[in-house]
Amino acid sequence: MIDFGSPLFARLREAARADWDAYVDHEFVRALGRGDLPEAAFLRYLRQDYLFLVQFARAWSLLAFKAGDPETMREAARVSLALVETELELHVGLCAAEGIDRAALAAGREAPETVAYTRFVIDAGLAGDELDLIVALTPCVLGYAEIGRRLAVGPRPADPRFAAWIDAYAGPEYGEAAARDARLLERAAARRIGPAPEDSARWPALTALFAEACRLEAAFWEGALRAGR
Amino acid sequence: MIDFGSPLFARLREAARADWDAYVDHEFVRALGRGDLPEAAFLRYLRQDYLFLVQFARAWSLLAFKAGDPETMREAARVSLALVETELELHVGLCAAEGIDRAALAAGREAPETVAYTRFVIDAGLAGDELDLIVALTPCVLGYAEIGRRLAVGPRPADPRFAAWIDAYAGPEYGEAAARDARLLERAAARRIGPAPEDSARWPALTALFAEACRLEAAFWEGALRAGR
Amino acid sequence: MIDFGSPLFARLREAARADWDAYVDHEFVRALGRGDLPEAAFLRYLRQDYLFLVQFARAWSLLAFKAGDPETMREAARVSLALVETELELHVGLCAAEGIDRAALAAGREAPETVAYTRFVIDAGLAGDELDLIVALTPCVLGYAEIGRRLAVGPRPADPRFAAWIDAYAGPEYGEAAARDARLLERAAARRIGPAPEDSARWPALTALFAEACRLEAAFWEGALRAGR
Amino acid sequence: MIDFGSPLFARLREAARADWDAYVDHEFVRALGRGDLPEAAFLRYLRQDYLFLVQFARAWSLLAFKAGDPETMREAARVSLALVETELELHVGLCAAEGIDRAALAAGREAPETVAYTRFVIDAGLAGDELDLIVALTPCVLGYAEIGRRLAVGPRPADPRFAAWIDAYAGPEYGEAAARDARLLERAAARRIGPAPEDSARWPALTALFAEACRLEAAFWEGALRAGR
Repeated sequence: MIDFGSPLFARLREAARADWDAYVDHEFVRALGRGDLPEAAFLRYLRQDYLFLVQFARAWSLLAFKAGDPETMREAARVSLALVETELELHVGLCAAEGIDRAALAAGREAPETVAYTRFVIDAGLAGDELDLIVALTPCVLGYAEIGRRLAVGPRPADPRFAAWIDAYAGPEYGEAAARDARLLERAAARRIGPAPEDSARWPALTALFAEACRLEAAFWEGALRAGR
Repeated sequence: MIDFGSPLFARLREAARADWDAYVDHEFVRALGRGDLPEAAFLRYLRQDYLFLVQFARAWSLLAFKAGDPETMREAARVSLALVETELELHVGLCAAEGIDRAALAAGREAPETVAYTRFVIDAGLAGDELDLIVALTPCVLGYAEIGRRLAVGPRPADPRFAAWIDAYAGPEYGEAAARDARLLERAAARRIGPAPEDSARWPALTALFAEACRLEAAFWEGALRAGR
Repeated sequence: MIDFGSPLFARLREAARADWDAYVDHEFVRALGRGDLPEAAFLRYLRQDYLFLVQFARAWSLLAFKAGDPETMREAARVSLALVETELELHVGLCAAEGIDRAALAAGREAPETVAYTRFVIDAGLAGDELDLIVALTPCVLGYAEIGRRLAVGPRPADPRFAAWIDAYAGPEYGEAAARDARLLERAAARRIGPAPEDSARWPALTALFAEACRLEAAFWEGALRAGR
Repeated sequence: MIDFGSPLFARLREAARADWDAYVDHEFVRALGRGDLPEAAFLRYLRQDYLFLVQFARAWSLLAFKAGDPETMREAARVSLALVETELELHVGLCAAEGIDRAALAAGREAPETVAYTRFVIDAGLAGDELDLIVALTPCVLGYAEIGRRLAVGPRPADPRFAAWIDAYAGPEYGEAAARDARLLERAAARRIGPAPEDSARWPALTALFAEACRLEAAFWEGALRAGR
């Protein structure tokens, strides 16, 4: 299992193993990989993920606000911009092909599980420091990278949209995003807890935060799957 | 007097006329235009403005965080990025020519007047909403544009650094930044107070906020000038 | 239907009528009033509400932070204090009688619906202004008051805990809390949108915020009920 | 020199010794102790300190918001309440005796040095975590306690207002406030950096934060003194 260049990520994942696995190996993910994810579940995911990404971009702007060193601000602002400029437009394109236009996407109502994860991350960043914020953001960023790679080594789903989804998250561009997140995580840890995270007074709280973010991500999959039943 | 495309800006400037004038027509600005700004004052300004820009970029990231609509987030994140990528590097270049390297710049200590204006803006954004934040940011963005244009029509200072400073803030690139700020101000106003700002219950508080930001900007010039005496 | 002294509340409730009714007349509330709420649902509610109240007290502290006028700060700080000093202790007492001690309560894990509502309120306050925050807080404060009064006029449930719950929220002490919330809502509105809320540019956003808070409150009841099945 | 029960405070004070001394032994403080503080300086101090306390109470509410454990929330909310209920009223009383009524106090304009320290503290809390916030708050709370005790052992100034000021900050009630601050500082440190603060990766940043807060406090004295010349 790769750590994307962040030993701290590897330790957090290990400490929250059961919650991590329940998230990255969720039935939604499996069904997408097998190609038998119900249409309604996929559409529900796309629509909610559009709303999710807007909030997620807010969280990355919050990281730029909190960090205060030019290097981290630059990287965090770039992520925020990439989310609203690139990823959001990918969803707009995918949804347009399904007959859902931009206005309908933007006017969508966030599901409770979308609210729960995104506002939890934002509040973790406001209650805590930049390390708390990036620890709460990381299950999303690196989890999708791990899911992409897991699915990419399996048989390719026939549905071209599912195959494209896997290609996107297993691909080099997203790989760079993952590496950047890992770098920011390591940098924040160096500043806030130093080189031995497990010896830090914050370790139990950090692992609890990471695990809760994994659970809320799994709940996000679950919501999409439920809508497809 | 141009309003950069924002009638609200024109009204705020009018309501805070004395404080606005004391800021954009400050002796620091005049001396720079005449070309007799003391060297120490200019260097002090450059060093403090580097530290100022880092905090100002944080304030723009805060705006992206608060706004929550993709269009405003995109514009605010771009400003934040331009500040840390472009403007900060301009200062690094100018200061390098004076023998002050990047590390020395970054290690500088913020003067009280740098702390006062930047943290006032940030707090205005946290205590209030996106409109409060952009009203507090605007005297800086549009004030520099007005100063650049005022000085550009006068005789050109012999010192090439002062001439370059005027060119930068009177130039088309900064003009676009000013237009974008004006656009964001109008958009926030449309959402938060509607088309008749002076009839809004918030009008007295908004003009007070704008005026206070002007006074803190003037105090920033004053601090640089004092250091040059 | 009483408005607790806030015409703005009456208008928001009217604008979000369906969501308000689904919340205050939820099956959880009805079952509590009839006295046949399953034991597991009541215990789940108590445990989650303990965790909810901690976050809710944070939101009231945020209001004190944002408001900045001594009178509102005083009232908001008192609410925050009452929540952590009095209401939290009521739950500790009730749970102790059920064999759940304070440490177990505090160590409980927030359900996704607890996370969703509380963090939504906090984020509404940080993204917006004091009026957004109190509009998001109000369905909880005034909703419980309306529920208490509705149930108090019906037949008294045999279970003394349910009867005590109704007495608490229908009683004069909670009535004062409701009146204070209504007063703060009116005061924030006077400052931020003036005397004609429905004419404000913010009216659609404010009603959407209020309605979403009602839906997240209903989801909180739903979560407790589901746990009791 | 007493540490008010906080070894961390003693270490921070030692690490920022020069800035601490320049603050607690400032000419404003000495003049107040000798009894020859100019009337205008004292009045300026009172008026600015009223405005300062409002912002300071906001910072304590922010601590309650950030902390999230009921015990810290309770203590922080009590401080916030004591500031707006008790300390603010003391100033109102003192100023009334000088012919400055409540409305005039509240309508006062914050001096740049009042803005600088208060917004710096608030921003430190939002950029960082609860420990950053309380480290930034502590020079004020414990500095006044140390000043009170220093002056109380010297000759008593003839001006009853100065004598009352010394009594207030040297007295048992303020001593309890100081002990509470020290307790909250230790608690936050235990959670965020553990038992060996000087070994923490955050130590240089924490001492820089503490030192900057001391300098901004000294600038606050300086502003009052300047106004009295």
